[in-house]
Amino acid sequence: MLVSQLFPQTSKTAPAGAESLNQQLLIRAGFIHQEMAGVYTYLPLGLKVLTKLSQIIREEMDRIGGQEVLMPALHPGENWKKTGRFETFDVLFKFKGASGADVVLGPTHEEIIYPLLTEYVTSYKDLPIALYQIQTKFRNELRAKAGLLRGREFLMKDLYSFHASEQDRDQYYEKVKKSYLKIFAQIGLPVLVTKAAGGTFSDLSDEFQSLTPSGEDTIFVCQSCQRAVNQEVFDEETCQQCGGEFKKEKSIEVGNIFPLKQSYAKAFGLYFTSEKGEKKLVSVGCYGLGISRVMGAIVEVFHDEKGIIWPEKVAPFQVYIVGLDLESKDIWDKAENIYQNLQAEGIEVLFDDRKSVSAGEKFTDADLLGIPYRVVISKKSESNLELKKRGEKTTQLVSLAELKSQLK
Amino acid sequence: MLVSQLFPQTSKTAPAGAESLNQQLLIRAGFIHQEMAGVYTYLPLGLKVLTKLSQIIREEMDRIGGQEVLMPALHPGENWKKTGRFETFDVLFKFKGASGADVVLGPTHEEIIYPLLTEYVTSYKDLPIALYQIQTKFRNELRAKAGLLRGREFLMKDLYSFHASEQDRDQYYEKVKKSYLKIFAQIGLPVLVTKAAGGTFSDLSDEFQSLTPSGEDTIFVCQSCQRAVNQEVFDEETCQQCGGEFKKEKSIEVGNIFPLKQSYAKAFGLYFTSEKGEKKLVSVGCYGLGISRVMGAIVEVFHDEKGIIWPEKVAPFQVYIVGLDLESKDIWDKAENIYQNLQAEGIEVLFDDRKSVSAGEKFTDADLLGIPYRVVISKKSESNLELKKRGEKTTQLVSLAELKSQLK
Repeated sequence: MLVSQLFPQTSKTAPAGAESLNQQLLIRAGFIHQEMAGVYTYLPLGLKVLTKLSQIIREEMDRIGGQEVLMPALHPGENWKKTGRFETFDVLFKFKGASGADVVLGPTHEEIIYPLLTEYVTSYKDLPIALYQIQTKFRNELRAKAGLLRGREFLMKDLYSFHASEQDRDQYYEKVKKSYLKIFAQIGLPVLVTKAAGGTFSDLSDEFQSLTPSGEDTIFVCQSCQRAVNQEVFDEETCQQCGGEFKKEKSIEVGNIFPLKQSYAKAFGLYFTSEKGEKKLVSVGCYGLGISRVMGAIVEVFHDEKGIIWPEKVAPFQVYIVGLDLESKDIWDKAENIYQNLQAEGIEVLFDDRKSVSAGEKFTDADLLGIPYRVVISKKSESNLELKKRGEKTTQLVSLAELKSQLK
Repeated sequence: MLVSQLFPQTSKTAPAGAESLNQQLLIRAGFIHQEMAGVYTYLPLGLKVLTKLSQIIREEMDRIGGQEVLMPALHPGENWKKTGRFETFDVLFKFKGASGADVVLGPTHEEIIYPLLTEYVTSYKDLPIALYQIQTKFRNELRAKAGLLRGREFLMKDLYSFHASEQDRDQYYEKVKKSYLKIFAQIGLPVLVTKAAGGTFSDLSDEFQSLTPSGEDTIFVCQSCQRAVNQEVFDEETCQQCGGEFKKEKSIEVGNIFPLKQSYAKAFGLYFTSEKGEKKLVSVGCYGLGISRVMGAIVEVFHDEKGIIWPEKVAPFQVYIVGLDLESKDIWDKAENIYQNLQAEGIEVLFDDRKSVSAGEKFTDADLLGIPYRVVISKKSESNLELKKRGEKTTQLVSLAELKSQLK
């Protein structure tokens, strides 16, 4: 992609009211645009990051036997009345449809997937089933000032697994926990599995928390074994696992998995006939991962005073070519040639081809955008390329072949 | 994918209230599930079709210089008041957010993209810009009984193009028109470009209409030159282009493109400074394509009494292997081997591996699902495969190599 063609150009200042760091940087760098508090448009660079995150998650969900579906945002209000959450879920968008019936904008999908399953599950032979979706969710937050960390409209992956026994569900639950750790390792965002309360969903749950001073959550982390416990359920002096000391930390919850209470299965009559002919309730697990929130969390964790520092696997482009002295035809041809050459190898390249912009502005934009590899092509660099990794201070002169081998 | 693992199994009957043919067949075949009138879950097979349609459209939009974005479903009510459509748009979902402000669920995105552009466009040098999204839209329909043809929640591609002159916009408009014809040709759905009224958007527009007796639209098609005119704007006796006779037809509108009225640019103050230093309104085009509606239209156009007949490029799988006599280890191994072999070549295969299901039920399901190539492996077929194309009557005995060459 040519920077001269990319929509939009960067901004020097964040708009008034952008309080959180992820919001300021993502808006200035042209990744997102705020439409109202907690509601954003993903601009081309931002959507590329969301798509890469989604694809990493999708592949891992497929690997653990998840089948992808897409459930709607509009839910019948009556389903939410059956679970009692029509009244108790505090941030529910609810209104009347044209026919006068209550409609809910889904913040989670138990109220859709349980009744759906009752139509297809009758016997133990139909189980287990694991269904997931990557879908837009809604929460009617009164305050939504943390950028992508707490939106009114946000992208989530939610997986639901259905089993003939709690034992089978618990085994799958552990499998999902490992799968989440693989996902965050691939993304490049460090997380701690954290014991937490289950809220309206279950008695206990595991959260995936990413440490950062700007986080809204408070967790206690054992300094010896890294075991983490959310403040909500923290009642230990020292670690029960290893006797170590706890340290209080701020963090962002980027994922949350629950063994669900049986009350949902009861509310919707989700039963099956066991091998012995008994009528039993289906055991269910629910596994959330906030995709747009992960994008915000990455910016909170990985940035410096100049801008964002994207981990390689989720960066919108791998290489940012800063073309200088482009009025020289030789330099232009060289830059253009390297741009084409890298793209032909499947490397994603953003080529700053702007002629009316100073070298300083190009370097500033490269840092703000946070593309992992910056390559300068200029008269000074002669036949070499000046390579610098975002977040590192040293530059090196490399040949095109050396650059390619570093990018592999 | 193994049919024994696929969620869900097919149904013999459509649920009560499923009036339209696309709804009946897609529900029975397990592609969609209705959650409320006009609101559906896309089950694994259905989501595969949506994803393939989206990918064909995305590649074509990228080819004509579109940059993909993702705008929100939640819109500030005040934006809709600026265009007057808060009151005049008759199927608008609107309600109050937690802060008391009016919120709209977007059925289209002029009210988001115009104010967004005002922040980034100042000069003719910033133009042209083409932005598109593949996104979920909402219409508060009183009656929504046509399955995927008229949903309360539906998937659309919408493209918006911004230009420094009407002439430039009109040139791009023609380019989009050609691009749409390429998209529908790839999908395999025949369409007619149809002159139509612009509704609240513009004075005139072009629709892409697919002929089928179940369509809600009425158009007049010249029997000589295939020129089509929507009933709304039809006032000719004979074709003005060739003098031919018109025939009245029923059809489904699957796409609609508009040169937008200047009133939107005025409402949001979307001006730019021209090369001569004049302050001018940006000229805009808007180009919609109903992705979930296309899925419904395909079923209305391509089916027989046994089920759906998917065009190859959008079918959820290319091959349906009917395994018979699977209690024989030889046959099982042969079927399993061919299943793996085809998948290794990148061919998408659904293998009916069910042992407790009769041959008749497997053939019935293969026809209902509408996968383009059905391959029977049984004792009878010996070392060959029995190949039948969905929608054709003849079967042929082929070798694995011959099958592969037909699938290329």
